[in-house]
Amino acid sequence: MSELEFVLPEEIEKRSFEIISRELKDRNILLKKEQEMVIKRVIHTSADFEYADTMTFSANAVDKAKALVRNGAHIVTDTNMALAGINKKILEGFGGEAHCFMAEERTAKLAKENNTTRAAVSMELAAEIGKPLIFAIGNAPTALVRLYEMIETKTLIPDFIIGVPVGFVNVVPAKELIMSTEVPHIVNRGRKGGSNVAAAICNAILYELVR
Amino acid sequence: MSELEFVLPEEIEKRSFEIISRELKDRNILLKKEQEMVIKRVIHTSADFEYADTMTFSANAVDKAKALVRNGAHIVTDTNMALAGINKKILEGFGGEAHCFMAEERTAKLAKENNTTRAAVSMELAAEIGKPLIFAIGNAPTALVRLYEMIETKTLIPDFIIGVPVGFVNVVPAKELIMSTEVPHIVNRGRKGGSNVAAAICNAILYELVR
Repeated sequence: MSELEFVLPEEIEKRSFEIISRELKDRNILLKKEQEMVIKRVIHTSADFEYADTMTFSANAVDKAKALVRNGAHIVTDTNMALAGINKKILEGFGGEAHCFMAEERTAKLAKENNTTRAAVSMELAAEIGKPLIFAIGNAPTALVRLYEMIETKTLIPDFIIGVPVGFVNVVPAKELIMSTEVPHIVNRGRKGGSNVAAAICNAILYELVR
Repeated sequence: MSELEFVLPEEIEKRSFEIISRELKDRNILLKKEQEMVIKRVIHTSADFEYADTMTFSANAVDKAKALVRNGAHIVTDTNMALAGINKKILEGFGGEAHCFMAEERTAKLAKENNTTRAAVSMELAAEIGKPLIFAIGNAPTALVRLYEMIETKTLIPDFIIGVPVGFVNVVPAKELIMSTEVPHIVNRGRKGGSNVAAAICNAILYELVR
């Protein structure tokens, strides 16, 4: 049986990141300085080193996301799980707010009327916030497809997209659509991702701003 | 570029599970009937087929968990993300409730006083609920260690443990401790897991009860 190690509660995260750093080195993976804390936090939340290969960043993505938060950007997610995971206290300290419209009654109603998903409707509702917007999509590829359509038709130009839905139906092409745009983004290529990954990326950016 | 496939919103999940079933077959992985929907839903939430090898079930675990929910068991989680992800509507239909004590003020206070984690304190607070309890642990190995200590000292015998914390410090041995007990459990061996996985397991059990 493996042995329990005595680690003080406040030291657990630090120790985890030391292990992640060492194992990345063992695998000869060298991360770009700007992206390092985002990728490490995603590995921390998933125990999956594959993310070191698949996480894709547009130019200066992390610096741009940090600047947006600093200027009071709001975050819009497609799941209440991601919303629960985001450190709203730090975000609110910069004047931002986190939103998820998925569980609202009007969202379900509009989705039914338009034969679309609640996630796609949520993107349209987000346009009404009237603030700089970071979209953090951890579940629904249809949210990314709708964002792409809105970008193409210039209905809404998101300031930033974190595109990490997980799954088997349309997840891969939806991510490719976002990567083909000019919108600053962090996308995880392939099937993997999730609400936990979306929240981890948001938090990595938020923690960088207060450390 | 990959092609988007047209799938009706209500068909997306069904189509995802068909792909998962086909790929499990391609990998020559045959799941036990009782465990099938739990493992498939975890793969659905993670896009990670490794779970088919590492998910560990005590004897008749899924049937036991279903019986507990049917009899009004409550679910206690160690993160608000897992709490957000659990289908509380179905759970409440059977008379149960879902709880997470992590963000409560008394939890932080007690953790500080006792130099332990909020997750460990949360396990102690759960003992006061006075209902059959399913613990769904997706984040904190210290929660599993505390549960193990409580089982050993007969302070609290959980009715069921879903033990799927993710991470690098004490996650592996904490899971082994739970697997060494007589308490019915579903545990993911190794480092992987997470709040999303904990919620997916709870939901697989809940959905089985209403389909």
